[in-house]
Amino acid sequence: MAEVVHMIDSEVFLAFSTYATIVVLKMMLMSFMTSYFRMTKKAFSNPEDTNLSAKASEDRKKLVRVDPDVERVRRCHLNDLENIVPFVVIGLLYALTGPDLSTALLHFRVFVGSRFVHTVAYVMAVPQPTRALAFAVGLFTTFSMAYRVLTTSLFL
Amino acid sequence: MAEVVHMIDSEVFLAFSTYATIVVLKMMLMSFMTSYFRMTKKAFSNPEDTNLSAKASEDRKKLVRVDPDVERVRRCHLNDLENIVPFVVIGLLYALTGPDLSTALLHFRVFVGSRFVHTVAYVMAVPQPTRALAFAVGLFTTFSMAYRVLTTSLFL
Amino acid sequence: MAEVVHMIDSEVFLAFSTYATIVVLKMMLMSFMTSYFRMTKKAFSNPEDTNLSAKASEDRKKLVRVDPDVERVRRCHLNDLENIVPFVVIGLLYALTGPDLSTALLHFRVFVGSRFVHTVAYVMAVPQPTRALAFAVGLFTTFSMAYRVLTTSLFL
Repeated sequence: MAEVVHMIDSEVFLAFSTYATIVVLKMMLMSFMTSYFRMTKKAFSNPEDTNLSAKASEDRKKLVRVDPDVERVRRCHLNDLENIVPFVVIGLLYALTGPDLSTALLHFRVFVGSRFVHTVAYVMAVPQPTRALAFAVGLFTTFSMAYRVLTTSLFL
Repeated sequence: MAEVVHMIDSEVFLAFSTYATIVVLKMMLMSFMTSYFRMTKKAFSNPEDTNLSAKASEDRKKLVRVDPDVERVRRCHLNDLENIVPFVVIGLLYALTGPDLSTALLHFRVFVGSRFVHTVAYVMAVPQPTRALAFAVGLFTTFSMAYRVLTTSLFL
Repeated sequence: MAEVVHMIDSEVFLAFSTYATIVVLKMMLMSFMTSYFRMTKKAFSNPEDTNLSAKASEDRKKLVRVDPDVERVRRCHLNDLENIVPFVVIGLLYALTGPDLSTALLHFRVFVGSRFVHTVAYVMAVPQPTRALAFAVGLFTTFSMAYRVLTTSLFL
Protein backbone atom coordinates (compact mmCIF):
# COMPACT_ATOMS: atom_id res chain seq x y z
CA MET A 1 0.00 0.00 0.00
CA ALA A 2 3.00 2.35 0.03
CA GLU A 3 2.10 3.43 -3.45
CA VAL A 4 -1.44 4.47 -2.53
CA VAL A 5 -0.45 8.09 -2.14
CA HIS A 6 0.76 8.09 -5.73
CA MET A 7 -2.48 6.48 -6.87
CA ILE A 8 -4.46 9.60 -6.01
CA ASP A 9 -2.35 11.45 -8.62
CA SER A 10 -2.70 8.70 -11.19
CA GLU A 11 -4.58 8.44 -14.46
CA VAL A 12 -6.73 5.74 -12.84
CA PHE A 13 -7.88 8.26 -10.25
CA LEU A 14 -8.55 10.88 -12.93
CA ALA A 15 -10.57 8.32 -14.86
CA PHE A 16 -12.55 7.42 -11.74
CA SER A 17 -13.16 11.10 -11.08
CA THR A 18 -14.46 11.62 -14.62
CA TYR A 19 -16.77 8.58 -14.79
CA ALA A 20 -18.08 9.01 -11.22
CA THR A 21 -18.98 12.62 -12.00
CA ILE A 22 -20.71 11.65 -15.26
CA VAL A 23 -22.80 8.89 -13.69
CA VAL A 24 -23.74 11.07 -10.68
CA LEU A 25 -24.81 13.86 -13.06
CA LYS A 26 -26.94 11.28 -14.91
CA MET A 27 -28.58 10.38 -11.59
CA MET A 28 -29.28 14.04 -10.85
CA LEU A 29 -31.09 14.39 -14.18
CA MET A 30 -33.73 12.00 -12.80
CA SER A 31 -34.84 14.85 -10.49
CA PHE A 32 -35.54 17.03 -13.52
CA MET A 33 -37.34 14.16 -15.24
CA THR A 34 -39.55 13.65 -12.17
CA SER A 35 -40.39 17.37 -12.08
CA TYR A 36 -41.12 17.34 -15.81
CA PHE A 37 -43.52 14.39 -15.51
CA ARG A 38 -45.18 15.89 -12.40
CA MET A 39 -45.83 19.10 -14.34
CA THR A 40 -47.04 17.55 -17.59
CA LYS A 41 -49.10 14.78 -15.93
CA LYS A 42 -50.27 17.16 -13.18
CA ALA A 43 -49.56 14.69 -10.39
CA PHE A 44 -48.00 16.11 -7.21
CA SER A 45 -47.18 14.66 -3.83
CA ASN A 46 -47.56 17.87 -1.79
CA PRO A 47 -50.62 20.16 -1.64
CA GLU A 48 -48.37 23.26 -1.69
CA ASP A 49 -46.89 22.21 -5.05
CA THR A 50 -50.19 22.28 -6.92
CA ASN A 51 -50.43 26.07 -7.22
CA LEU A 52 -47.91 25.77 -10.05
CA SER A 53 -50.53 24.02 -12.18
CA ALA A 54 -54.01 25.12 -11.02
CA LYS A 55 -55.59 28.19 -9.48
CA ALA A 56 -58.93 27.07 -8.02
CA SER A 57 -58.42 25.31 -4.68
CA GLU A 58 -60.99 22.64 -5.63
CA ASP A 59 -58.92 21.70 -8.70
CA ARG A 60 -55.72 21.74 -6.72
CA LYS A 61 -56.81 19.02 -4.30
CA LYS A 62 -57.29 16.64 -7.23
CA LEU A 63 -53.70 17.16 -8.33
CA VAL A 64 -52.27 15.50 -5.19
CA ARG A 65 -52.29 12.06 -6.72
CA VAL A 66 -50.14 9.18 -7.89
CA ASP A 67 -49.37 8.86 -11.60
CA PRO A 68 -47.88 5.65 -13.05
CA ASP A 69 -45.37 7.50 -15.26
CA VAL A 70 -44.14 9.64 -12.36
CA GLU A 71 -43.79 6.52 -10.19
CA ARG A 72 -41.80 4.83 -12.97
CA VAL A 73 -39.28 7.68 -13.08
CA ARG A 74 -39.08 7.68 -9.25
CA ARG A 75 -38.37 3.94 -9.17
CA CYS A 76 -35.65 4.45 -11.77
CA HIS A 77 -34.15 7.23 -9.63
CA LEU A 78 -34.18 5.05 -6.49
CA ASN A 79 -32.60 2.18 -8.45
CA ASP A 80 -29.86 4.61 -9.49
CA LEU A 81 -29.21 5.52 -5.86
CA GLU A 82 -29.11 1.84 -4.87
CA ASN A 83 -26.52 1.05 -7.55
CA ILE A 84 -24.52 4.22 -8.18
CA VAL A 85 -23.71 4.76 -4.49
CA PRO A 86 -22.01 1.31 -4.26
CA PHE A 87 -20.15 2.02 -7.52
CA VAL A 88 -18.82 5.35 -6.24
CA VAL A 89 -17.73 3.97 -2.86
CA ILE A 90 -16.17 0.76 -4.14
CA GLY A 91 -14.82 2.45 -7.27
CA LEU A 92 -12.95 5.03 -5.17
CA LEU A 93 -11.36 2.33 -2.99
CA TYR A 94 -10.64 0.28 -6.12
CA ALA A 95 -8.87 3.24 -7.78
CA LEU A 96 -6.63 3.49 -4.69
CA THR A 97 -5.52 -0.17 -5.03
CA GLY A 98 -3.52 0.70 -8.15
CA PRO A 99 -5.19 -1.38 -10.88
CA ASP A 100 -4.02 -1.35 -14.51
CA LEU A 101 -5.36 1.69 -16.31
CA SER A 102 -6.94 -0.39 -19.08
CA THR A 103 -8.68 -2.73 -16.59
CA ALA A 104 -9.94 0.20 -14.54
CA LEU A 105 -11.23 2.01 -17.64
CA LEU A 106 -13.04 -1.15 -18.70
CA HIS A 107 -14.82 -1.35 -15.32
CA PHE A 108 -15.75 2.34 -15.27
CA ARG A 109 -16.97 2.42 -18.88
CA VAL A 110 -19.01 -0.78 -18.62
CA PHE A 111 -20.67 0.39 -15.40
CA VAL A 112 -21.52 3.88 -16.67
CA GLY A 113 -22.76 2.47 -20.00
CA SER A 114 -24.94 -0.10 -18.21
CA ARG A 115 -26.62 2.62 -16.15
CA PHE A 116 -27.44 4.71 -19.24
CA VAL A 117 -28.96 1.63 -20.90
CA HIS A 118 -30.84 0.86 -17.66
CA THR A 119 -32.35 4.35 -17.50
CA VAL A 120 -33.49 4.33 -21.13
CA ALA A 121 -34.92 0.82 -20.73
CA TYR A 122 -36.74 1.80 -17.52
CA VAL A 123 -38.20 5.15 -18.60
CA MET A 124 -39.28 3.86 -22.04
CA ALA A 125 -40.55 0.53 -20.62
CA VAL A 126 -38.44 -1.48 -23.08
CA PRO A 127 -39.43 -5.20 -22.94
CA GLN A 128 -37.40 -7.33 -20.54
CA PRO A 129 -34.74 -8.64 -20.18
CA THR A 130 -33.01 -5.44 -21.42
CA ARG A 131 -33.35 -3.62 -18.10
CA ALA A 132 -32.57 -6.71 -16.02
CA LEU A 133 -29.40 -7.33 -18.04
CA ALA A 134 -28.24 -3.70 -17.75
CA PHE A 135 -28.86 -3.89 -14.00
CA ALA A 136 -26.93 -7.18 -13.70
CA VAL A 137 -23.96 -5.92 -15.75
CA GLY A 138 -23.61 -2.88 -13.48
CA LEU A 139 -23.89 -5.03 -10.37
CA PHE A 140 -21.23 -7.51 -11.46
CA THR A 141 -18.86 -4.72 -12.50
CA THR A 142 -19.10 -3.37 -8.96
CA PHE A 143 -18.62 -6.88 -7.51
CA SER A 144 -15.49 -7.30 -9.63
CA MET A 145 -14.01 -4.08 -8.21
CA ALA A 146 -15.00 -5.11 -4.66
CA TYR A 147 -13.20 -8.42 -5.18
CA ARG A 148 -9.97 -6.58 -6.00
CA VAL A 149 -10.37 -4.21 -3.02
CA LEU A 150 -10.87 -7.12 -0.61
CA THR A 151 -8.08 -9.28 -2.08
CA THR A 152 -5.45 -6.51 -2.26
CA SER A 153 -6.13 -4.69 1.01
CA LEU A 154 -8.07 -6.87 3.43
CA PHE A 155 -7.63 -5.71 7.04
CA LEU A 156 -10.22 -7.12 9.42
CA MET B 1 -2.66 16.95 -10.99
CA ALA B 2 0.79 16.67 -9.33
CA GLU B 3 -0.48 18.86 -6.53
CA VAL B 4 -3.46 16.65 -5.70
CA VAL B 5 -1.60 14.94 -2.87
CA HIS B 6 -1.12 18.32 -1.24
CA MET B 7 -4.78 19.13 -1.71
CA ILE B 8 -5.80 16.43 0.77
CA ASP B 9 -3.90 18.37 3.45
CA SER B 10 -5.32 21.71 2.39
CA GLU B 11 -7.80 24.07 4.00
CA VAL B 12 -10.17 23.34 1.10
CA PHE B 13 -10.20 19.68 2.10
CA LEU B 14 -10.75 20.56 5.76
CA ALA B 15 -13.64 22.81 4.74
CA PHE B 16 -15.14 20.04 2.61
CA SER B 17 -14.76 17.63 5.52
CA THR B 18 -16.57 20.01 7.87
CA TYR B 19 -19.46 20.92 5.58
CA ALA B 20 -19.95 17.36 4.32
CA THR B 21 -20.15 16.11 7.91
CA ILE B 22 -22.64 18.83 8.88
CA VAL B 23 -24.96 18.19 5.94
CA VAL B 24 -24.80 14.39 6.41
CA LEU B 25 -25.64 14.83 10.12
CA LYS B 26 -28.61 16.99 9.06
CA MET B 27 -29.75 14.15 6.78
CA MET B 28 -29.44 11.65 9.64
CA LEU B 29 -31.72 13.82 11.80
CA MET B 30 -34.52 13.01 9.33
CA SER B 31 -34.50 9.45 10.75
CA PHE B 32 -35.25 10.82 14.22
CA MET B 33 -37.93 13.08 12.81
CA THR B 34 -39.58 10.12 11.07
CA SER B 35 -39.53 8.10 14.31
CA TYR B 36 -40.95 11.06 16.23
CA PHE B 37 -43.85 11.50 13.78
CA ARG B 38 -44.50 7.73 13.69
CA MET B 39 -44.76 7.71 17.50
CA THR B 40 -46.88 10.83 17.90
CA LYS B 41 -49.16 10.14 14.91
CA LYS B 42 -49.22 6.40 15.74
CA ALA B 43 -48.58 5.35 12.13
CA PHE B 44 -46.16 2.46 11.60
CA SER B 45 -45.08 0.50 8.57
CA ASN B 46 -44.31 -2.81 10.36
CA PRO B 47 -46.69 -4.83 12.60
CA GLU B 48 -43.84 -5.57 15.04
CA ASP B 49 -43.31 -1.83 15.64
CA THR B 50 -46.79 -1.19 17.00
CA ASN B 51 -46.19 -2.71 20.44
CA LEU B 52 -44.37 0.50 21.29
CA SER B 53 -47.69 2.38 21.15
CA ALA B 54 -50.54 -0.05 21.89
CA LYS B 55 -51.06 -3.20 23.92
CA ALA B 56 -54.26 -4.82 22.60
CA SER B 57 -53.55 -6.72 19.37
CA GLU B 58 -56.77 -5.40 17.82
CA ASP B 59 -55.62 -1.83 18.30
CA ARG B 60 -52.17 -2.64 17.02
CA LYS B 61 -53.37 -3.75 13.59
CA LYS B 62 -54.91 -0.32 13.06
CA LEU B 63 -51.55 1.35 13.66
CA VAL B 64 -50.00 -0.15 10.51
CA ARG B 65 -51.09 2.72 8.34
CA VAL B 66 -49.91 5.61 6.19
CA ASP B 67 -49.97 9.10 7.70
CA PRO B 68 -49.54 12.20 5.50
CA ASP B 69 -47.15 13.92 7.94
CA VAL B 70 -44.94 10.83 8.21
CA GLU B 71 -44.89 10.53 4.40
CA ARG B 72 -43.91 14.19 4.11
CA VAL B 73 -40.87 13.67 6.35
CA ARG B 74 -39.96 10.52 4.43
CA ARG B 75 -40.12 12.35 1.08
CA CYS B 76 -37.89 15.05 2.53
CA HIS B 77 -35.40 12.39 3.71
CA LEU B 78 -35.35 10.73 0.27
CA ASN B 79 -34.86 14.12 -1.39
CA ASP B 80 -31.88 14.66 0.92
CA LEU B 81 -30.38 11.34 -0.18
CA GLU B 82 -30.94 12.21 -3.85
CA ASN B 83 -29.16 15.57 -3.47
CA ILE B 84 -26.63 15.20 -0.64
CA VAL B 85 -25.04 12.05 -2.10
CA PRO B 86 -24.16 13.90 -5.36
CA PHE B 87 -22.84 16.84 -3.32
CA VAL B 88 -20.57 14.61 -1.24
CA VAL B 89 -19.20 12.68 -4.23
CA ILE B 90 -18.69 15.65 -6.54
CA GLY B 91 -17.60 17.90 -3.64
CA LEU B 92 -14.83 15.46 -2.67
CA LEU B 93 -13.53 15.28 -6.24
CA TYR B 94 -13.88 19.08 -6.54
CA ALA B 95 -11.83 19.61 -3.34
CA LEU B 96 -9.06 17.51 -4.92
CA THR B 97 -8.88 19.76 -8.02
CA GLY B 98 -7.37 22.55 -5.89
CA PRO B 99 -9.93 25.35 -6.19
CA ASP B 100 -9.50 28.74 -4.46
CA LEU B 101 -10.44 28.50 -0.80
CA SER B 102 -12.95 31.35 -1.05
CA THR B 103 -14.66 29.84 -4.12
CA ALA B 104 -14.82 26.43 -2.47
CA LEU B 105 -16.22 27.85 0.78
CA LEU B 106 -18.87 29.70 -1.24
CA HIS B 107 -19.98 26.45 -2.90
CA PHE B 108 -20.02 24.45 0.35
CA ARG B 109 -21.84 27.14 2.35
CA VAL B 110 -24.47 27.83 -0.31
CA PHE B 111 -25.18 24.11 -0.74
CA VAL B 112 -25.46 23.35 2.98
CA GLY B 113 -27.57 26.47 3.56
CA SER B 114 -29.89 25.53 0.69
CA ARG B 115 -30.51 22.07 2.20
CA PHE B 116 -31.40 23.51 5.62
CA VAL B 117 -33.86 25.91 3.95
CA HIS B 118 -35.22 23.00 1.87
CA THR B 119 -35.84 20.85 4.96
CA VAL B 120 -37.62 23.61 6.88
CA ALA B 121 -39.71 24.48 3.79
CA TYR B 122 -40.61 20.82 3.23
CA VAL B 123 -41.45 19.81 6.81
CA MET B 124 -43.44 22.99 7.54
CA ALA B 125 -45.13 22.97 4.10
CA VAL B 126 -44.03 26.56 3.37
CA PRO B 127 -45.81 27.86 0.21
CA GLN B 128 -43.90 27.36 -3.02
CA PRO B 129 -41.59 28.38 -4.63
CA THR B 130 -39.44 28.46 -1.44
CA ARG B 131 -38.71 24.72 -1.49
CA ALA B 132 -38.29 24.59 -5.27
CA LEU B 133 -35.77 27.45 -5.13
CA ALA B 134 -33.78 25.87 -2.28
CA PHE B 135 -33.70 22.61 -4.25
CA ALA B 136 -32.57 24.40 -7.44
CA VAL B 137 -29.83 26.38 -5.66
CA GLY B 138 -28.36 23.17 -4.20
CA LEU B 139 -28.54 21.44 -7.58
CA PHE B 140 -26.77 24.22 -9.45
CA THR B 141 -24.08 24.49 -6.78
CA THR B 142 -23.31 20.81 -7.37
CA PHE B 143 -23.40 21.31 -11.16
CA SER B 144 -20.90 24.16 -10.80
CA MET B 145 -18.49 21.89 -8.89
CA ALA B 146 -19.00 19.09 -11.43
CA TYR B 147 -18.13 21.53 -14.21
CA ARG B 148 -14.78 22.28 -12.55
CA VAL B 149 -14.07 18.58 -11.97
CA LEU B 150 -14.75 17.74 -15.62
CA THR B 151 -12.84 20.73 -17.05
CA THR B 152 -9.74 20.32 -14.86
CA SER B 153 -9.37 16.54 -14.85
CA LEU B 154 -11.26 14.96 -17.74
CA PHE B 155 -9.90 11.53 -18.59
CA LEU B 156 -12.27 9.41 -20.71
CA MET C 1 -3.34 17.77 9.38
CA ALA C 2 0.18 17.38 7.95
CA GLU C 3 -0.04 13.68 8.59
CA VAL C 4 -3.24 13.21 6.57
CA VAL C 5 -1.29 12.12 3.51
CA HIS C 6 0.23 9.32 5.53
CA MET C 7 -3.19 8.32 6.83
CA ILE C 8 -4.29 7.20 3.39
CA ASP C 9 -1.51 4.58 3.53
CA SER C 10 -2.33 3.57 7.09
CA GLU C 11 -3.84 0.43 8.59
CA VAL C 12 -6.82 2.57 9.66
CA PHE C 13 -7.49 3.38 6.01
CA LEU C 14 -7.12 -0.28 5.00
CA ALA C 15 -9.55 -1.23 7.76
CA PHE C 16 -12.03 1.41 6.59
CA SER C 17 -11.65 0.17 3.02
CA THR C 18 -12.40 -3.42 4.10
CA TYR C 19 -15.40 -2.70 6.34
CA ALA C 20 -16.90 -0.13 3.95
CA THR C 21 -16.71 -2.65 1.10
CA ILE C 22 -18.29 -5.40 3.23
CA VAL C 23 -21.21 -3.26 4.38
CA VAL C 24 -21.82 -1.87 0.87
CA LEU C 25 -21.83 -5.44 -0.52
CA LYS C 26 -24.38 -6.35 2.18
CA MET C 27 -26.54 -3.44 0.99
CA MET C 28 -26.27 -4.65 -2.62
CA LEU C 29 -27.55 -8.08 -1.58
CA MET C 30 -30.88 -6.40 -0.74
CA SER C 31 -31.40 -5.96 -4.52
CA PHE C 32 -31.15 -9.73 -4.98
CA MET C 33 -33.48 -10.30 -2.05
CA THR C 34 -36.05 -7.93 -3.55
CA SER C 35 -35.84 -9.74 -6.93
CA TYR C 36 -36.17 -13.11 -5.17
CA PHE C 37 -39.31 -12.03 -3.27
CA ARG C 38 -40.80 -10.41 -6.40
CA MET C 39 -40.34 -13.69 -8.31
CA THR C 40 -41.58 -16.06 -5.59
CA LYS C 41 -44.47 -13.84 -4.45
CA LYS C 42 -45.24 -12.83 -8.05
CA ALA C 43 -45.54 -9.13 -7.22
CA PHE C 44 -43.99 -6.70 -9.72
CA SER C 45 -43.95 -2.94 -10.01
CA ASN C 46 -43.64 -2.75 -13.83
CA PRO C 47 -45.95 -4.34 -16.43
CA GLU C 48 -42.93 -5.30 -18.58
CA ASP C 49 -41.47 -7.37 -15.73
CA THR C 50 -44.41 -9.76 -15.48
CA ASN C 51 -43.53 -11.80 -18.58
CA LEU C 52 -40.90 -13.50 -16.46
CA SER C 53 -43.68 -15.15 -14.40
CA ALA C 54 -46.80 -15.44 -16.58
CA LYS C 55 -47.62 -15.83 -20.25
CA ALA C 56 -51.28 -14.83 -20.66
CA SER C 57 -51.65 -11.05 -20.73
CA GLU C 58 -54.73 -11.24 -18.49
CA ASP C 59 -52.72 -12.99 -15.78
CA ARG C 60 -49.85 -10.58 -16.20
CA LYS C 61 -51.90 -7.50 -15.30
CA LYS C 62 -52.71 -9.05 -11.93
CA LEU C 63 -49.01 -9.41 -11.13
CA VAL C 64 -48.45 -5.64 -11.01
CA ARG C 65 -49.24 -5.41 -7.34
CA VAL C 66 -47.87 -4.59 -3.91
CA ASP C 67 -46.83 -7.47 -1.66
CA PRO C 68 -46.14 -6.90 2.08
CA ASP C 69 -42.99 -9.09 2.07
CA VAL C 70 -41.54 -7.29 -0.95
CA GLU C 71 -42.29 -3.94 0.68
CA ARG C 72 -40.57 -5.10 3.87
CA VAL C 73 -37.36 -5.92 1.98
CA ARG C 74 -37.57 -2.60 0.12
CA ARG C 75 -37.93 -0.64 3.39
CA CYS C 76 -34.91 -2.51 4.75
CA HIS C 77 -32.93 -1.59 1.62
CA LEU C 78 -33.90 2.09 1.91
CA ASN C 79 -32.98 2.08 5.60
CA ASP C 80 -29.57 0.70 4.59
CA LEU C 81 -29.09 3.55 2.12
CA GLU C 82 -30.12 6.11 4.76
CA ASN C 83 -27.58 4.75 7.26
CA ILE C 84 -24.72 3.22 5.26
CA VAL C 85 -24.20 6.34 3.11
CA PRO C 86 -23.54 8.49 6.24
CA PHE C 87 -21.23 5.77 7.63
CA VAL C 88 -19.17 5.67 4.42
CA VAL C 89 -18.87 9.46 4.09
CA ILE C 90 -18.14 10.19 7.75
CA GLY C 91 -16.04 7.03 8.15
CA LEU C 92 -13.77 8.07 5.26
CA LEU C 93 -13.23 11.54 6.75
CA TYR C 94 -12.76 9.95 10.20
CA ALA C 95 -10.09 7.57 8.85
CA LEU C 96 -8.21 10.63 7.52
CA THR C 97 -8.11 12.26 10.98
CA GLY C 98 -5.63 9.62 12.17
CA PRO C 99 -7.51 7.87 14.98
CA ASP C 100 -6.00 4.99 17.01
CA LEU C 101 -6.24 1.74 15.06
CA SER C 102 -8.05 -0.05 17.90
CA THR C 103 -10.59 2.76 18.33
CA ALA C 104 -11.22 2.90 14.58
CA LEU C 105 -11.63 -0.89 14.34
CA LEU C 106 -14.12 -0.76 17.22
CA HIS C 107 -16.22 1.83 15.38
CA PHE C 108 -16.11 -0.03 12.04
CA ARG C 109 -16.87 -3.44 13.55
CA VAL C 110 -19.72 -2.23 15.74
CA PHE C 111 -21.31 -0.37 12.83
CA VAL C 112 -21.05 -3.24 10.36
CA GLY C 113 -22.26 -5.74 12.97
CA SER C 114 -25.23 -3.53 13.83
CA ARG C 115 -26.31 -3.38 10.19
CA PHE C 116 -26.21 -7.18 9.80
CA VAL C 117 -28.33 -7.54 12.97
CA HIS C 118 -30.67 -4.83 11.65
CA THR C 119 -31.17 -6.63 8.32
CA VAL C 120 -31.89 -10.01 9.94
CA ALA C 121 -34.27 -8.38 12.44
CA TYR C 122 -36.07 -6.48 9.67
CA VAL C 123 -36.43 -9.27 7.10
CA MET C 124 -37.46 -11.89 9.69
CA ALA C 125 -39.74 -9.44 11.57
CA VAL C 126 -38.00 -10.13 14.89
CA PRO C 127 -39.99 -8.55 17.77
CA GLN C 128 -38.90 -5.06 18.76
CA PRO C 129 -36.75 -3.54 20.20
CA THR C 130 -34.08 -5.67 18.43
CA ARG C 131 -34.25 -3.74 15.17
CA ALA C 132 -34.60 -0.36 16.90
CA LEU C 133 -31.52 -1.08 19.03
CA ALA C 134 -29.44 -2.23 16.04
CA PHE C 135 -30.48 0.94 14.20
CA ALA C 136 -29.58 3.13 17.20
CA VAL C 137 -26.18 1.48 17.72
CA GLY C 138 -25.24 2.11 14.07
CA LEU C 139 -26.44 5.71 14.28
CA PHE C 140 -24.47 6.50 17.43
CA THR C 141 -21.31 4.88 16.03
CA THR C 142 -21.56 7.26 13.08
CA PHE C 143 -22.22 10.22 15.42
CA SER C 144 -19.11 9.29 17.41
CA MET C 145 -16.98 9.37 14.26
CA ALA C 146 -18.58 12.67 13.18
CA TYR C 147 -17.72 14.14 16.60
CA ARG C 148 -14.04 13.34 16.03
CA VAL C 149 -14.08 14.73 12.48
CA LEU C 150 -15.60 18.02 13.65
CA THR C 151 -13.39 18.38 16.74
CA THR C 152 -10.10 17.57 14.96
CA SER C 153 -10.61 19.38 11.67
CA LEU C 154 -13.32 22.02 11.95
CA PHE C 155 -12.98 24.69 9.25
CA LEU C 156 -16.10 26.80 8.75
